Amino acid sequence: MFDVIAIGNAIVDVMAPASEADIERLGLAKGGMTLVDSARAQGLYDAMGPAREISGGSAANTLAGLAALGARCAFIGQVADDQLGEVFAHDIRAGGIAFSTPARGQEPPTARCLIFVTPDGQRTMNTFLGASQHLPAAALDPSAIAAASVLYLEGYLWDPEEPRQAMRRAIEAARTAGRQVAFTLSDGFVIARHGDDFRALIDAGQIDILFANEHELAALTGCNDFADGLAQLAPKVATLVVTRSEHGAHAVSGGEHVQVAAEPVAKVVDTTGAGDLFAAGFLFGHVRGRPLAECLRLGAICAAEIISHYGARPEADLQALIAAQLG
Amino acid sequence: MFDVIAIGNAIVDVMAPASEADIERLGLAKGGMTLVDSARAQGLYDAMGPAREISGGSAANTLAGLAALGARCAFIGQVADDQLGEVFAHDIRAGGIAFSTPARGQEPPTARCLIFVTPDGQRTMNTFLGASQHLPAAALDPSAIAAASVLYLEGYLWDPEEPRQAMRRAIEAARTAGRQVAFTLSDGFVIARHGDDFRALIDAGQIDILFANEHELAALTGCNDFADGLAQLAPKVATLVVTRSEHGAHAVSGGEHVQVAAEPVAKVVDTTGAGDLFAAGFLFGHVRGRPLAECLRLGAICAAEIISHYGARPEADLQALIAAQLG
Repeated sequence: MFDVIAIGNAIVDVMAPASEADIERLGLAKGGMTLVDSARAQGLYDAMGPAREISGGSAANTLAGLAALGARCAFIGQVADDQLGEVFAHDIRAGGIAFSTPARGQEPPTARCLIFVTPDGQRTMNTFLGASQHLPAAALDPSAIAAASVLYLEGYLWDPEEPRQAMRRAIEAARTAGRQVAFTLSDGFVIARHGDDFRALIDAGQIDILFANEHELAALTGCNDFADGLAQLAPKVATLVVTRSEHGAHAVSGGEHVQVAAEPVAKVVDTTGAGDLFAAGFLFGHVRGRPLAECLRLGAICAAEIISHYGARPEADLQALIAAQLG
Repeated sequence: MFDVIAIGNAIVDVMAPASEADIERLGLAKGGMTLVDSARAQGLYDAMGPAREISGGSAANTLAGLAALGARCAFIGQVADDQLGEVFAHDIRAGGIAFSTPARGQEPPTARCLIFVTPDGQRTMNTFLGASQHLPAAALDPSAIAAASVLYLEGYLWDPEEPRQAMRRAIEAARTAGRQVAFTLSDGFVIARHGDDFRALIDAGQIDILFANEHELAALTGCNDFADGLAQLAPKVATLVVTRSEHGAHAVSGGEHVQVAAEPVAKVVDTTGAGDLFAAGFLFGHVRGRPLAECLRLGAICAAEIISHYGARPEADLQALIAAQLG
C-alpha cells in the first residue's frame, strides 16, 4: 500500500540566525545535534534571536521529500496534545503523508529542536525530545508495515528505550513480510551509544539500505580512511549510501560502486535536512526501480533544494525540479 | 524612555503557499483580512498546505522593524498561556522589544492568522483573534505611555471592545503627557465598522500621525479620487502617510507634500507586512527627526525588504540596508 513507511522523531524546528560568537558564547557543538533537557532548552530559547517554526524530524523530513516527489508514505511518531503537536500533524498530513499515531497527553510537550543557523549555512541543533521519546510499540500497525515496500528508520530514535523497542518490532514485521528495511545512522552520538546494536543488526542481515555520512561511516567501522570504511561495510548491506557534504556521495549496491558530485547551489542558506532530503531523493529512485547512479543524482538534487532555504521541508516543486534537472 | 510604545494584536502567522484555485475553492477574499471563528480557522488550517509559523500582528511587526533599526520600543498585547503565546513573546523580546503583558489563561488560545500566499506574492489573511481580543485596559502602564515619544495604535484592534477601551485610555495618557499618537487604519472592514470613531478622533485632533493605504483613505474620506482624499484628510492631522503599493507613497505634513517611488524588488515573494514595515521605516525617521522625504524613503526601503521573503518580520540587517541605500 505505501512505498515507504517511516518511524521517527516528531519534532518542530525552531530556527534562528546566529553568529559564530553566539555559538561559542552558548557553548554549542557547532554542526552537531545535542540532546537537551527542558531547562537547557528554555535557556537556549531565551538566548535565541527571533525565530520561525517549521516542522522537522529527520525521517519526517525524508517522507516530506518522498511525498512531494510522488511516493505514497506513512509516518509513525509521537506528538503531545498541544499546539506544536498540531503543527507537526498538520504539516505532515498536508504534505500528503498518512499519520495516525494518537497524541499522548500534554506532558511532556511535543519535541522541538532549537536550531542556530550560522552565516556559513551550518546548522547547530539542540533537541528537546519531549513526547517523541515515548513512542510506544503499540503505535505500530504491523499490517501497514508488512504492506509497505520500505520501512525507513531514523537512528536518532534508537536512543530512547520505548521507540527502540517499537523499531525492533517494526523490523521484525517488515522482514517477516519480505520487505526492505532502510536505516539512517543520524549522528555520531547515536553510534557512540548504540553502535553495537547497529553492527549486530547489520551483521545479522537485518538492514537492506544503510544511509550514513562520512563521519558516521568512520564511527561505525572504526576506519578513518573513507575507502576502507566503504569496503568494510558495503558487503554487509544490499545498498550502502554515504554522503560527503559538498564532496558529493557514494553508493555501493550489488557489486556496483557509483558516485555523484554535489549539485551546485547558488548560496547555502541552511544545511538543516540535507541528509534527510538526500535520502528522500535516493529512496524515491529506489522504490521506482531507477538505476543506482540516478538514485544518487535524485538525492543530490533534493539535498541542493533543501540547503538553499531555511527549514528542512521542501519549498520548491520537487517533481518539476527533478524533471528539469534530469531532462 | 521608549521611542515608540505600541498596542496591537499578538498574533502568530501560519503561512503557506496557495494557488489561485485554492483561494477560489476556499471562498477566501483575496488580498484582504477576514476575521474567522475557531471552526472556520480549523477548516481552513485543514485545507492549508504544509506551513511555517512566524510571529506577526500588525503593530508588533512595525515594532520589530523599528527595533531592528535601533529604536527603543515596547509592545502591549494579549497572548494566552500556551505554546503559540510563548512563541510570540519570545520573538518580540528577542527582537529587543520590551513586552510585559501577562498571558491570560489557556482559553481562548493565542491568536493566529492563517495566511495563504499566492504565486503573485499577494497574501490572503484569515485571523482567529483568540486571546488577543481580550486585552484589558489594566494591561496598560500609563507612565510608560506618558514617557514614550510616540504611541502607536493598530486599527485592527479597535474592533473588539476591551482593547478599544484600552486604546482610548492610552490615547488620553499620551495626549495628557504631550506625546504624539500614531494610528494605522489597518483595513477597510475596520473603517466600515468604526469609521465614525476614527473620524471623530481625527476631527478632535487626537491623532498626530495617520497611516493609511489608498483604499483606506478612500473608505475613510468617501473620496474615490486620491488627490481629493488626501486634500480632505491632510489638514486634520499633523502628518498623513498614504501608501500605494507598487506606486509608492505620499506624506503630507506641515504644508509639505512629498512622495516616494516604491523601492525596486527582485521578486515579490510575500506582501505580508508591507504596510507594517513601511510604517516602521517612516516612524524611525520621524523619531530621529529626519526630513519628511527621508522618512518616506526609509519606509519604502523597509517595505521592500519585507516583501522579498516570507513573513512580516525583517530578515535582513535593516540598519545595514538603510546605510547602503541612503549612503
